[in-house]
Amino acid sequence: MKRIENFKSIIDKYKVIFFDAFGVIKTYQGLVPGIEKTFSYLEKEKKEYYIVTNDASRSPAQLAQTYHKMGLSAITPDRIVSSGMLTKEYLDLKVKDGIVAYLGTSDSAHYIETSGLHTMPVSQVNSSNIDKVNALIFLDDEGFDWFEDLNKTVNILRKRTIPVIVANTDHAYPLSVTDVSIAIGGIANMIERIAGKEFIRFGKPDSQMFMFAYDLIREYRTITKQEIVMVGDTLHTDILGGNKFGLDTVLVLSGNTLPNDAEARITATGIAPTYICETAVVELGELGF
Amino acid sequence: MKRIENFKSIIDKYKVIFFDAFGVIKTYQGLVPGIEKTFSYLEKEKKEYYIVTNDASRSPAQLAQTYHKMGLSAITPDRIVSSGMLTKEYLDLKVKDGIVAYLGTSDSAHYIETSGLHTMPVSQVNSSNIDKVNALIFLDDEGFDWFEDLNKTVNILRKRTIPVIVANTDHAYPLSVTDVSIAIGGIANMIERIAGKEFIRFGKPDSQMFMFAYDLIREYRTITKQEIVMVGDTLHTDILGGNKFGLDTVLVLSGNTLPNDAEARITATGIAPTYICETAVVELGELGF
Amino acid sequence: MKRIENFKSIIDKYKVIFFDAFGVIKTYQGLVPGIEKTFSYLEKEKKEYYIVTNDASRSPAQLAQTYHKMGLSAITPDRIVSSGMLTKEYLDLKVKDGIVAYLGTSDSAHYIETSGLHTMPVSQVNSSNIDKVNALIFLDDEGFDWFEDLNKTVNILRKRTIPVIVANTDHAYPLSVTDVSIAIGGIANMIERIAGKEFIRFGKPDSQMFMFAYDLIREYRTITKQEIVMVGDTLHTDILGGNKFGLDTVLVLSGNTLPNDAEARITATGIAPTYICETAVVELGELGF
Amino acid sequence: MKRIENFKSIIDKYKVIFFDAFGVIKTYQGLVPGIEKTFSYLEKEKKEYYIVTNDASRSPAQLAQTYHKMGLSAITPDRIVSSGMLTKEYLDLKVKDGIVAYLGTSDSAHYIETSGLHTMPVSQVNSSNIDKVNALIFLDDEGFDWFEDLNKTVNILRKRTIPVIVANTDHAYPLSVTDVSIAIGGIANMIERIAGKEFIRFGKPDSQMFMFAYDLIREYRTITKQEIVMVGDTLHTDILGGNKFGLDTVLVLSGNTLPNDAEARITATGIAPTYICETAVVELGELGF
Repeated sequence: MKRIENFKSIIDKYKVIFFDAFGVIKTYQGLVPGIEKTFSYLEKEKKEYYIVTNDASRSPAQLAQTYHKMGLSAITPDRIVSSGMLTKEYLDLKVKDGIVAYLGTSDSAHYIETSGLHTMPVSQVNSSNIDKVNALIFLDDEGFDWFEDLNKTVNILRKRTIPVIVANTDHAYPLSVTDVSIAIGGIANMIERIAGKEFIRFGKPDSQMFMFAYDLIREYRTITKQEIVMVGDTLHTDILGGNKFGLDTVLVLSGNTLPNDAEARITATGIAPTYICETAVVELGELGF
Repeated sequence: MKRIENFKSIIDKYKVIFFDAFGVIKTYQGLVPGIEKTFSYLEKEKKEYYIVTNDASRSPAQLAQTYHKMGLSAITPDRIVSSGMLTKEYLDLKVKDGIVAYLGTSDSAHYIETSGLHTMPVSQVNSSNIDKVNALIFLDDEGFDWFEDLNKTVNILRKRTIPVIVANTDHAYPLSVTDVSIAIGGIANMIERIAGKEFIRFGKPDSQMFMFAYDLIREYRTITKQEIVMVGDTLHTDILGGNKFGLDTVLVLSGNTLPNDAEARITATGIAPTYICETAVVELGELGF
Repeated sequence: MKRIENFKSIIDKYKVIFFDAFGVIKTYQGLVPGIEKTFSYLEKEKKEYYIVTNDASRSPAQLAQTYHKMGLSAITPDRIVSSGMLTKEYLDLKVKDGIVAYLGTSDSAHYIETSGLHTMPVSQVNSSNIDKVNALIFLDDEGFDWFEDLNKTVNILRKRTIPVIVANTDHAYPLSVTDVSIAIGGIANMIERIAGKEFIRFGKPDSQMFMFAYDLIREYRTITKQEIVMVGDTLHTDILGGNKFGLDTVLVLSGNTLPNDAEARITATGIAPTYICETAVVELGELGF
Repeated sequence: MKRIENFKSIIDKYKVIFFDAFGVIKTYQGLVPGIEKTFSYLEKEKKEYYIVTNDASRSPAQLAQTYHKMGLSAITPDRIVSSGMLTKEYLDLKVKDGIVAYLGTSDSAHYIETSGLHTMPVSQVNSSNIDKVNALIFLDDEGFDWFEDLNKTVNILRKRTIPVIVANTDHAYPLSVTDVSIAIGGIANMIERIAGKEFIRFGKPDSQMFMFAYDLIREYRTITKQEIVMVGDTLHTDILGGNKFGLDTVLVLSGNTLPNDAEARITATGIAPTYICETAVVELGELGF
């Protein structure tokens, strides 16, 4: 049986902490109680931290604002690495002109707009503009009519040989203690199978998410992978992805993986974190305040 | 290179003909031109025939009526074997009471109603009746709100350990020369993966469809599998299923499998029909009329 | 929490009992202790029983003999329905001449030989006879050189568009308390993916196994599906397949599904048996001896 | 129809060229005829190049030597980025001590050995040392007994919750015009499914391969992704991976993708290269020699 460890004693060993967002910092009920103490401690100890999230529904600025509204001001836009940012980089590098059709809200699309590219909801694609559609992006499960626009998406992909980006690889996300919501990553899998095309996915566990964050840090300082630890609540995304990229990993039990299940799921999947902690909260007593 | 053969000379060798519906008898444009001659010939020769279809959207009576409206009166309800009939048989045998929740039109649900069971669209399931839901059925891609009701379906399946039936295994169906529509079988695959449950599927290529038709015939006469031939336009459903059940098979090129592609797709998949014909039409000249 | 029920009181309600073999009647250690009492009771009560097994490694006669050697004489060859019998029926109906190449022991091949067909181990296929190879069968994980013959199988399938039959759908089978062995069904999945072809599988949970047994009974008596119960230790094969075919089902906890796990696995997979019993043993006291 | 372009005119636009090995530089028959001219040109133009290969069977030094023996001296060990190098980096970062069990030749294992870790063929793992096995690596399809050691691998993974690395993601590789060989990546998929564990894969199309090469370059010079082009013969690995990483890509028709098929496969998969060329050979006339 793996030992449950003290979160503070773990982060003391690293220079940079990567946090997953959902299930670690916040849940459907708001902030994880006490999590602000963790960020106070990190600031005090001058440790760097990044939020590494499979959330392409909003820009880093908008995501940061949701934390501020909940009372956590430590998370600024420059601390956030999202799968939406990888999507934006891909479009910058690989799609030079034309229309980027998308499934999602206009908020999610606004962020990925780049000079020279025009974003357009799938609902507005028609026979007069389809020839200019040079990429199609799955951004969010809201903001469109599932019946109309998913059927339309399949037919656009039958007519155009274009890159398709899935900006969020999650299949479902929690809404409440009992309920989940189908995520755009689950929908994209269905469309990929029906269209018979190969989509491009950005998001944990894929290494490109971790590399993007790693590169951000290296722009201004020297760092090695041994000096970074990834903190997450989900074995298949946070822990598998962190491990594969060569980072040490912490599984917290405040989200997707329940305390009673952790050991069994680690054994069943073979995905083992370096450490297991109850939560990512650094307790006040530990802070010596 | 496989020889294209004469349809009449093939059916002359068999006592019973199983026909797929879509792509063989009708397309999105109506009846396959001339197909009524095939049924005149079968009647004249006193050969039996059945329509074996992955269509659970309507009852055999309603399906027969659509043929009559198009001018083909030979197809009566007793000639139709559908995946909806297998669903109905399953409910009769295995679900004794309570509510059968469904995704589909009320037409599709009406047919599967059996004494003692109450059918209810997923949209009407709520906290006061969910404990009585003893089965959930995917019937048709129309008749419900995809966003609301697919999310609700996932959450019903998280709360109830009940059989889930997919009454149509197709992933997509053709709407026009260029466009397809996502079928309920494709949607069911997405929900199955997200819910993590094992669904029950009725429909070709599964043997249970062929067995059901075979049993219907054996109720009133003696027949062997060698005396039956399956005619279809799709390698993965009609031909694979027919072959596996032990029937001879005819691939027709009037639907899903295009004349230019047939040979390459047979080689690529390894699914080989006994014969290939342009269409299932028996030409007038051949009839000796 | 599902109640553990008394096996005798269950079988008292049915006229015909289908048993899985491994994990129900025998384990890697020999007969399930006391199982002979069950068959004594069935004989005394004049109930019919069949062994429905995904075992194509030997003929029914050879399989029956292994039970006799263990001291269970009640299981005669005519009581056994195996996936090997379906394979034999397929070859009879669909492969008229030429060579049937196989992976397995000569024992397994001997049984499927039919008049007009010549069986040949994959190792003996060469450039002079490959054009006569009209089917390829995965029979058993023993009897061939994995490296040589699996590579050869892939290359035969690149040259010949022929039906490929997987006569045992299991991926692994238990060897001891701690160890399993890779089964031919697992190997066949790998070859299918590499060859890119669509294989034909016989074995539970596929309905064709149940239909074969059902047809055997109907040859000499009238029976309905409600009068048959399927007894098995594996949710994904015995219980799923029995349920789908319309039979009531009993999960026994003497094999693949452990007592501590049963409830969690039923909930996780959504595959629910009609009943759960510790074992398929009818206790002496119950017999009134 | 996509235009076939001149390879020289393409590479003239980039500063760094990444080459796939098999199907681009060499085939089962030896070097692609004339390929040495390409490397002469690159040297003359002072362009950098790397071989990015899913080959973990040998060290970069040994791989370079095979090119030298064929007469291509331009490819030195420091030009080679292999999935074996990623495996070695993973072990350095994540597996601190104990035994690394492997499937492959001793050559392939020798390379991944690092201080503190002991490599051991799966065949030598036994009850006295299994508790020290802290990782298991799939390196090569040769060097072990498939029957004995694949079964043993499954059982090691049932007893140890350890990371499993697949150092070559290919499913098959060509041996001759007509024949292929099952690759270790295909075998690993079978074992992963049977063991029910989640393996870690290094190799194209995964981004980590491209990132490793990109980081190597950035250690001594400044470069952007726009200045690099990836040249490969396989849509699903070289082109998909290069595209996803943000590189321009060249599909050459000298290997896996045949001239007659290229257009159809691009349309079917949706994986589009930036350019298509007959081969990666720079013609003499073009060199102005």
